[in-house]
Amino acid sequence: MQKNRSTIIPGFKFASVSANIKTPGKKDLAIIFSENVAAVAGVFTTNRIKAAPVMLDIARIKSHKGRAIIVNSGNANACTGRQGLEDAKTMVKLTAGELGIEPGSVYVASTGVIGRPLPMEKIRTALPGLAKELSSLSMQDVASAIMTTDTFAKTVFRKIKIAGKAGTVAGMAKGAGMICPNMATLLSFIVTDIAVEPKTLDKALRQAVRKSFNRLIIDNDMSTNDTVLIMANGILKNRLITKSSPDYDKFEDALSDVTYSLAKMIARDGEGATKLIEVIVKGARTEADAEKAARAVANSLLVKTAIYGNDPNWGRILAAIGYSGAKINEQKISLSANNCKLFDKGIGAKNIRKDIFSKKDIIITADLGLGKKEAKVLTCDLTEGYIKINASYTT
Amino acid sequence: MQKNRSTIIPGFKFASVSANIKTPGKKDLAIIFSENVAAVAGVFTTNRIKAAPVMLDIARIKSHKGRAIIVNSGNANACTGRQGLEDAKTMVKLTAGELGIEPGSVYVASTGVIGRPLPMEKIRTALPGLAKELSSLSMQDVASAIMTTDTFAKTVFRKIKIAGKAGTVAGMAKGAGMICPNMATLLSFIVTDIAVEPKTLDKALRQAVRKSFNRLIIDNDMSTNDTVLIMANGILKNRLITKSSPDYDKFEDALSDVTYSLAKMIARDGEGATKLIEVIVKGARTEADAEKAARAVANSLLVKTAIYGNDPNWGRILAAIGYSGAKINEQKISLSANNCKLFDKGIGAKNIRKDIFSKKDIIITADLGLGKKEAKVLTCDLTEGYIKINASYTT
Repeated sequence: MQKNRSTIIPGFKFASVSANIKTPGKKDLAIIFSENVAAVAGVFTTNRIKAAPVMLDIARIKSHKGRAIIVNSGNANACTGRQGLEDAKTMVKLTAGELGIEPGSVYVASTGVIGRPLPMEKIRTALPGLAKELSSLSMQDVASAIMTTDTFAKTVFRKIKIAGKAGTVAGMAKGAGMICPNMATLLSFIVTDIAVEPKTLDKALRQAVRKSFNRLIIDNDMSTNDTVLIMANGILKNRLITKSSPDYDKFEDALSDVTYSLAKMIARDGEGATKLIEVIVKGARTEADAEKAARAVANSLLVKTAIYGNDPNWGRILAAIGYSGAKINEQKISLSANNCKLFDKGIGAKNIRKDIFSKKDIIITADLGLGKKEAKVLTCDLTEGYIKINASYTT
Repeated sequence: MQKNRSTIIPGFKFASVSANIKTPGKKDLAIIFSENVAAVAGVFTTNRIKAAPVMLDIARIKSHKGRAIIVNSGNANACTGRQGLEDAKTMVKLTAGELGIEPGSVYVASTGVIGRPLPMEKIRTALPGLAKELSSLSMQDVASAIMTTDTFAKTVFRKIKIAGKAGTVAGMAKGAGMICPNMATLLSFIVTDIAVEPKTLDKALRQAVRKSFNRLIIDNDMSTNDTVLIMANGILKNRLITKSSPDYDKFEDALSDVTYSLAKMIARDGEGATKLIEVIVKGARTEADAEKAARAVANSLLVKTAIYGNDPNWGRILAAIGYSGAKINEQKISLSANNCKLFDKGIGAKNIRKDIFSKKDIIITADLGLGKKEAKVLTCDLTEGYIKINASYTT
């Protein structure tokens, strides 16, 4: 995303600074600010151990509205007990004071190391400077500030016509590991100037997340901090979109496009990843079966290492489908990778090209031959890089 | 296990040769032979895609008896369609012919690459020589012949007194990857000279497997070929052990000891592993909860890489317990590793030693503080070695 006037989202401002929480000198504290009260919807981790900021947001979002998100990287404020909750509340109060808004309209998110107290003095010191940085051009900088092991900042910007007016849906995300399908993702913030009724916003967000962040696997770990928040400030002054509006589908499609694009960026930037993998399972009896099979393949370390090693070891894909729990019949399954047939109804294909896994983008397609339902899951290959990153993260 | 007369299991003979299925010159075809008809019990993969030898054994084991197991490494005879089943049957028939026994009394197992036809001509050529090699001293050689990515042969030998007589329970196993808890293990064969009634043998085997091979995680993949077979030939001439025998518990304990010891060897020899990890979850409301939590920790790539990297990143352990699905209350959990307290009822411990993960044997203990049930799961660390082995296995 370029830093120019064409990527402004009307009514939203962004700021980021270095508070020395992460690596000294690297930006790690950021604000997303709406000039007026926006409708807000959110999806949070389903981990039973939830970080303090997540607990605070879950309570706050019952109001369905808000004006700002304060977010830090470098410390997750998770497994920090009562003090953690106090720190999250203080962070919100200080932010509200700097912005001159109600504390009840500020959401908070943290990402980074688990189990260490939030360095409140650093945050207290950095906040006044942060509020002064607010600019409508700085979304990309905020996307950088929320990174942990990400190698690039992830932003998506989409324009859609709503009743003749050009509305904007823009999103950012961070996440490269600890990403499991049964949750949102690490952190993603989406802003739009389109006016959307709060419960409709919630519905559209859940739909979008279900087929994007919830169908994304890097490792099999689920974070304590996963948060997706959307703010819709209505500055476009379109007729309020509700579940029955003719424009609802258009809005949901744009939002889904934003979240799917972000999910794809996360998969491509998976810790140590060299390849983006899309697993498509079709011909299933139910969508649940298709999803189970696709997830098992995307979650198989053996499949992911084979793809990394350019090894057309398709038996591992089939074995994963076999243990996925999906209803299958080996004699009806067909399997291909990047349009090369690997297995056809019970028998391995002849003359399989050796180079099917050599590209940067791998598409694995399995047809279970039992029905018409399908599902798609995103993942990446598993490499020595993942081990290196995660064997030395805190110390 | 030493090759001497003290490790003879009365009535059993073993043989192995190189049939050039695996690496030329390496042993890859083996027989386990009982001089008389033995009671047989088995546990097999729950993968819906089952290799041909597994399908054949599942049918055969309904007789609860047998005299021989023929096993090859280098080729799994899985995903090989009707031809695969024909090949498994032919392998059994040829073996029976060489041994001069009924084909119905021969079990078969294969391990290695999935999806390639079994090289029947090589097996046909090697079998006559194999039968001539039978010796009561060669169990360790058979354990070597069934290895794939294993770095050492795994055998366990136990003596137990049954009504004053010294009985033997001996087992071997192969397996270093594709090992997931919802199954037996790759291959394990156990022999005993103790007389056990077939259904009792089945019960004891299931009990032993449940807490050993079924609580062992290397990666999250489940093989198509997993097979555990036990043969009890009764040559000890003890009074037949039934479920109500006073000696039943003693026998089950010995068998459990053999399978747990083998499981521990498999974890220690996990592909690329440098450390053995035992995850103990206690204080759970139910055993199922304890097991869920222990499995989530043992299956977490982030926990396994942290241990590899000597990084006391206990937040990852807690996060895994949180998403395990077990009933928990963060404020009641205590966590320690190798007797060093990490987390105590909602708060991280102070002064955590930096070296808690530096030993070769790591014991992680989590007390959920909610009840009295517990479970133990075995695993190993995740290293660049795992990636290297699995990125280049077939090609």
